[in-house]
Amino acid sequence: MGRTPPHPEVSQFDLQQVLEALVDPVRRSIVTQLDAADEDLSCGTFDISVSKSTATHHFKVLREAGLIRQYYVGTSRLNALRRAEMDAAFPGLLDALTTRREQ
Amino acid sequence: MGRTPPHPEVSQFDLQQVLEALVDPVRRSIVTQLDAADEDLSCGTFDISVSKSTATHHFKVLREAGLIRQYYVGTSRLNALRRAEMDAAFPGLLDALTTRREQ
Repeated sequence: MGRTPPHPEVSQFDLQQVLEALVDPVRRSIVTQLDAADEDLSCGTFDISVSKSTATHHFKVLREAGLIRQYYVGTSRLNALRRAEMDAAFPGLLDALTTRREQ
Repeated sequence: MGRTPPHPEVSQFDLQQVLEALVDPVRRSIVTQLDAADEDLSCGTFDISVSKSTATHHFKVLREAGLIRQYYVGTSRLNALRRAEMDAAFPGLLDALTTRREQ
């Protein structure tokens, strides 16, 4: 439990912060991959071409905005898309960004 | 006609550019005000607390992303939200950002 990083509650979600998280194409790609995967993914399984430390930063920004939930299973850090909560706070936003084929 | 600034066509709309335009709260406010107005508005009628030159920059960013169309009537520059075109390119995106009460 002590290793679980802090997460905002839905009531704390902030549209400005969510948009600042999603304006970055790498972070948007992480969200899109999680949405498509239908399961929680460990940090190392994402198809993103950035260094490990940069990736860690991106995951942190997404977590702090409320877009993903991070938790540990053994030594693996897993990432879950907080879709239902995000949909409740900002209806349609993730749909608009993830159903669209990008590049 | 010569005074009409260039506008992208729908096929040129780029999600990254649109999000970069919408991540700015002043620009998002302009879009929200246009959406609520149900008529085209001249640049001076918006309730935004920035200098005229800063406002001009924001309108330019919105225009170049395809979010607004700017045209002249006499000496007034009018702004129209390109909602139908934006909805065609990125279904649900403007709905998600304009139906939400901010602050």
